[in-house]
Amino acid sequence: MDAAFYSRSTLTEDEARADDEVYGALADATRDLADAQLRTQVDHEEARAVTAEIRALTERLRSKAREGALGTEIGPGRQVRNHGNAVMGLRNPFASTGATVRTIDEDRHVHRSFELGPLYEGPPGLVHGGVSALVLDQLLGESAAVGGGPGMTARLTIHYRRPTPLGTVGAEGWVDSTEGRKTIARGVLRDADGATTVEAEGLFVLPSWAEDHPEWQRRHDRSTFE
Amino acid sequence: MDAAFYSRSTLTEDEARADDEVYGALADATRDLADAQLRTQVDHEEARAVTAEIRALTERLRSKAREGALGTEIGPGRQVRNHGNAVMGLRNPFASTGATVRTIDEDRHVHRSFELGPLYEGPPGLVHGGVSALVLDQLLGESAAVGGGPGMTARLTIHYRRPTPLGTVGAEGWVDSTEGRKTIARGVLRDADGATTVEAEGLFVLPSWAEDHPEWQRRHDRSTFE
Repeated sequence: MDAAFYSRSTLTEDEARADDEVYGALADATRDLADAQLRTQVDHEEARAVTAEIRALTERLRSKAREGALGTEIGPGRQVRNHGNAVMGLRNPFASTGATVRTIDEDRHVHRSFELGPLYEGPPGLVHGGVSALVLDQLLGESAAVGGGPGMTARLTIHYRRPTPLGTVGAEGWVDSTEGRKTIARGVLRDADGATTVEAEGLFVLPSWAEDHPEWQRRHDRSTFE
Repeated sequence: MDAAFYSRSTLTEDEARADDEVYGALADATRDLADAQLRTQVDHEEARAVTAEIRALTERLRSKAREGALGTEIGPGRQVRNHGNAVMGLRNPFASTGATVRTIDEDRHVHRSFELGPLYEGPPGLVHGGVSALVLDQLLGESAAVGGGPGMTARLTIHYRRPTPLGTVGAEGWVDSTEGRKTIARGVLRDADGATTVEAEGLFVLPSWAEDHPEWQRRHDRSTFE
């Protein structure tokens, strides 16, 4: 990892919008397929037939594809394009539906709502404890950045207060304190009734190389980087 | 959550094996599609055409499907069927390739190897910090169970020592201590060179209702439950 941390997109604003619409719809369709194949009870013959067709579509998509991961690009209007992100990437079917949307309130608290359906299961009917940690890492990182102290996660502590049922899960994060390159952020998950199910605390540290990095200086928002 | 925590499968051993082969292959194909669509650079027309075909396959799978999540079933031979599990479920495309395989060494340490490719990206080229937490929660829970003290995650602390590059990630977990219904497990992630990148500590607590639950008593292996 060095200062060539991300690349600059060559897309125009219109091209970026068109790309996002087309490839975003592809990811949405793939996410729905992932859910459908998890829950399907079609017979073996039909399951095998669908499997073969999925394989054929995969080959079509692979006929022209980049080799590695998407990374993070800075697009037109300095828009951050981290579309591969595992939690909220536009092109990542593993990212929860709706996770690309966030709001920031007047206190600089970050709010997200995650749709955590059957694909996010751990104990029967419940969100996997690791999935709660996954989305909270993302949320706290963004909260640190929005609150003024971006950085990479150095430590993350999750307290599981009660089970989180599968379904709509609310999330809120905020900065607790900042000192030099270190920021402590806190956050919670809430179930559909608004009850807090999980609490988290994260320590985020700005790498020393990043202090001199113009992208970090210009854009103090860690949602770019995680 | 109550003592009706999971259900009993009615499948015979042969039926279970056949089901796992067919639906496991469907999940594998879907996982590959998810990776291919993330990295594809086919033009918009082709991407739209593939999207439409994915939608059609999804409808075929939905024509006969269970309503909710898969939960956990106890199959023939007391085999645990938690195929929906977000980290290692056989039918879950979000679960990393190969994550269904684990080994237990003579010291009762649990070892897994995760293939964390572009779909697991956080910072450019690196495993998302939340993904590290996700797989470590699963691993530590299993380690607690294998070491003798199964339970639900009560607290999870992750220390990020250095970035974890995308690719093959090794994982090892073990029991640190057990006291009554509480077990502390520890674990690490290692990069392809064997260097430790992430360390974790988890507190696992056996719910009081589970103490009387025959499945918990007979099968002291939390890999069942997470």
